[in-house]
Amino acid sequence: MTKLTEAISMASSSSSLSPPQVPMELHLTNREKLLKYLRQHLSESSRPLHGFVFLQGGEEKTRHDTDHIELFRQESYFAYLFGVKEPGFYGAIEIATGKSILFAPRLPADYAVWLGEIKPLSFFKESYMVSRACYTDEIAKVLHELYQGLGKPLLFLLQGLNTDSNKFFRPAEFEEMDKFDADLTTLHPILTECRVIKSELELALIQYANDISSEAHVEVMRKIRVGMKEYQLESMFLHYTYMYGGCRHCSYTCICATGDNSAVLHYGHAAAPNDRTLEDGDMALLDMGAEYHFYGSDITCSFPVNGKFTSDQCLIYQAVLDAHDAVIAALRPGVSWVDMHKLAEKVILESLKKGCIVVGNVDDMIAEHLGAVFMSHGLGHFLGIDTHDPGGYLKGLERQKEPGLRALRTVRELQEGMVITVEPGCYFIDALLDPAMKSSETSRFFNHEAIGRFRGFGGVRIESDVLVTANGCNNLTKCPREIWEIEEVMAGGPWLPEKNSHRDEL
Amino acid sequence: MTKLTEAISMASSSSSLSPPQVPMELHLTNREKLLKYLRQHLSESSRPLHGFVFLQGGEEKTRHDTDHIELFRQESYFAYLFGVKEPGFYGAIEIATGKSILFAPRLPADYAVWLGEIKPLSFFKESYMVSRACYTDEIAKVLHELYQGLGKPLLFLLQGLNTDSNKFFRPAEFEEMDKFDADLTTLHPILTECRVIKSELELALIQYANDISSEAHVEVMRKIRVGMKEYQLESMFLHYTYMYGGCRHCSYTCICATGDNSAVLHYGHAAAPNDRTLEDGDMALLDMGAEYHFYGSDITCSFPVNGKFTSDQCLIYQAVLDAHDAVIAALRPGVSWVDMHKLAEKVILESLKKGCIVVGNVDDMIAEHLGAVFMSHGLGHFLGIDTHDPGGYLKGLERQKEPGLRALRTVRELQEGMVITVEPGCYFIDALLDPAMKSSETSRFFNHEAIGRFRGFGGVRIESDVLVTANGCNNLTKCPREIWEIEEVMAGGPWLPEKNSHRDEL
Repeated sequence: MTKLTEAISMASSSSSLSPPQVPMELHLTNREKLLKYLRQHLSESSRPLHGFVFLQGGEEKTRHDTDHIELFRQESYFAYLFGVKEPGFYGAIEIATGKSILFAPRLPADYAVWLGEIKPLSFFKESYMVSRACYTDEIAKVLHELYQGLGKPLLFLLQGLNTDSNKFFRPAEFEEMDKFDADLTTLHPILTECRVIKSELELALIQYANDISSEAHVEVMRKIRVGMKEYQLESMFLHYTYMYGGCRHCSYTCICATGDNSAVLHYGHAAAPNDRTLEDGDMALLDMGAEYHFYGSDITCSFPVNGKFTSDQCLIYQAVLDAHDAVIAALRPGVSWVDMHKLAEKVILESLKKGCIVVGNVDDMIAEHLGAVFMSHGLGHFLGIDTHDPGGYLKGLERQKEPGLRALRTVRELQEGMVITVEPGCYFIDALLDPAMKSSETSRFFNHEAIGRFRGFGGVRIESDVLVTANGCNNLTKCPREIWEIEEVMAGGPWLPEKNSHRDEL
Repeated sequence: MTKLTEAISMASSSSSLSPPQVPMELHLTNREKLLKYLRQHLSESSRPLHGFVFLQGGEEKTRHDTDHIELFRQESYFAYLFGVKEPGFYGAIEIATGKSILFAPRLPADYAVWLGEIKPLSFFKESYMVSRACYTDEIAKVLHELYQGLGKPLLFLLQGLNTDSNKFFRPAEFEEMDKFDADLTTLHPILTECRVIKSELELALIQYANDISSEAHVEVMRKIRVGMKEYQLESMFLHYTYMYGGCRHCSYTCICATGDNSAVLHYGHAAAPNDRTLEDGDMALLDMGAEYHFYGSDITCSFPVNGKFTSDQCLIYQAVLDAHDAVIAALRPGVSWVDMHKLAEKVILESLKKGCIVVGNVDDMIAEHLGAVFMSHGLGHFLGIDTHDPGGYLKGLERQKEPGLRALRTVRELQEGMVITVEPGCYFIDALLDPAMKSSETSRFFNHEAIGRFRGFGGVRIESDVLVTANGCNNLTKCPREIWEIEEVMAGGPWLPEKNSHRDEL
């Protein structure tokens, strides 16, 4: 490669962004927030401000019996409170004093030969801005020394239901647990609720993850070609966000669905591994987001592989974009997420009616849950350290029963500081269309001929990450969304999101 | 980007390779090989040829309590016998008839909406070339129907020690296990030994993984620049092997060590995450290998970041290359791997003596285990579906006690068809040098002033994957190795491994 072509090649893919330094005040602030709400709760319950919040960090995992180690990513609650990237840690926060203590694993001498420098405790104390750092074999001793009360010290452990996975969080375990009392119910709802409302420092990371991922989506739009494999789109995205953005992890496995596959909501996993060849006339639905210092992004772009929308593609795409924009225009504190979902369904059905794909009265369609035939997933979910960030169902809130609504990952009213994805979609899924088109309640709504035209079309999803602000919301995602924008960018035109002011008017 | 610059940019990174179709005869052959040796063993023990080999495939795992699913990669023994990429399967082989049966999970109807087409059993039967495909809830019924003997059918389950991880393989579990007898000892040594000697079809995949990874190493050599971050080298490698080679998985987490870090043997994990900035004068040690259809590669290249070796860098590099070449020249069936390790140590010590880094009689140094001060790891390991492929210690073989030798992952005599890594290294590790330079037994061997010069140098490793052939061995790895080759390639020269005939003479 000559110097000239090299310069051109480097320039063609470089980013205006560079990975930011992460201030550990972020996690200090998270701990202070937890302390505030936990103390408040204890006071209101007339309980003493004694004991320790006590969490166990994640461990490295090997693959089955082998010594193949999967790349470690910290457990999310532990990451929230301590920001520790290394495996094998524990962490405590003394409720009375606010003192924070990290417990690091005591590494064997040959770690230095095989795995790297054995860092002194002072390194962890300073790097992670905690009050103290000790070894994990000192947990019982250290906490007993600090404890001022009578009897056994009380540990507030984390245990509770994740309403997305339906799995329970397993509380911390260590050898001398019997020397402590344990409270297993108080911490989970309070800590989870802390994670729902994002701080300024958290928002800066989510914005960065969005910025680099938005750029990477644009890169893929520009480089996509008929004849490529879906996984090549994944590879380009991963490379861009790691090479230029320093993002070693993705928020989730990339969904690179083209043609028919774009109707498979969670395509891309091992059994459906982004291995189709792109064909002329295909729509692509690319749901990909990078993670930076634990905080993620979750972005979907849909566009024609060949760079030019057909009229049918325009119809479905614009229906979804109108829903996306309508929700973003309506979002503000106090609004119910269920109503936003219904709004998106309604806008989509109205567009499908205008396009003669469905026929009849839209309110009647809604009464028969026709929206869920075209969009069976929920409108969106909280986003943060987890892609499906917890807290969607506060204690007492229950899932709705109706199709579509029952898939919602939250039914809460929006509050300032929440980050939530807005991701309406419209899909042509045989498994949902066939029964609905046969059903005596819903058959009459379909233009059967038109639906036939869309068999094999797949689907369209448009997903942005938005921050709920005092008066509305702020879209953190900066991808081309209008049809003309997408076509221009794919034809080689510039993409300068700051200057595309019509998007900022939302 | 204009059409011209795009063409240049694409051309600069394209590969002559493309991902090959994988014939499922590969796994059929693997099953037949197991049957042959298992039947032979049973006959020799005067046991009936009754029962079933029965394995459980891997399951998808979520991260802690969340619904974040890690990208699934099949368990290696199951992959060997069945080649199944999907999670949640079981597999059986009837010993009397050789019939193979895959048991697929019965997927819920909404899988089609969220995760993709629900494939019929016939799909799995045909794709994976098994005699029959059933559902996992039919295991007991199907195996009982097939069973011809008296009493409970016998299942040969897999249980045994992995001598690299020191962990035990956990045998298959399913609900109606109590309807079967279990043999937990016979299968593991026989199946493991099958994996040690590679078939032609397996070798083709290992060669492909080597070809694409070798190219990717060359790509990184060409694009590396002072001022980059180590993880950018990882990103380039991953992108090249996925984009052009279709390799979604790596054999292991990339080790992208520069400067001082190149003395950390397993650098690159979460606690030492390839995050250093490359400096002028650094050596880079890049240990990276892609995996294709389960079969891996494991390749290390060492070179100066700025593209020109200094005399000190030449000295250490050439010492390691001479050891690498000497081992490859000596490798043939019947040779002991322990002797190969000793040969590498000896060649390195002789070079270090010639370079005035150590002084005295090399045989005396060897008697005092001085080799292990500079190369504390073993010379290499079997390679296949696992990076550290099993079978290194056949029943009865024991680890050696001496420094260096005790780190060997095998002490076997080589046999035709084995694939093993040859990876000598020479490192300047304070944790090993300091005690050796103080010890009354070994202090006299060091030129203390010269060693001082190499503090912070890091280390050099050169790793190739070789196939033991009838008369010698075949190096599957095709990277620039000679100093002049590396400097030429890094300066933009061509790399046409087929034409670099002096390498083929080995």
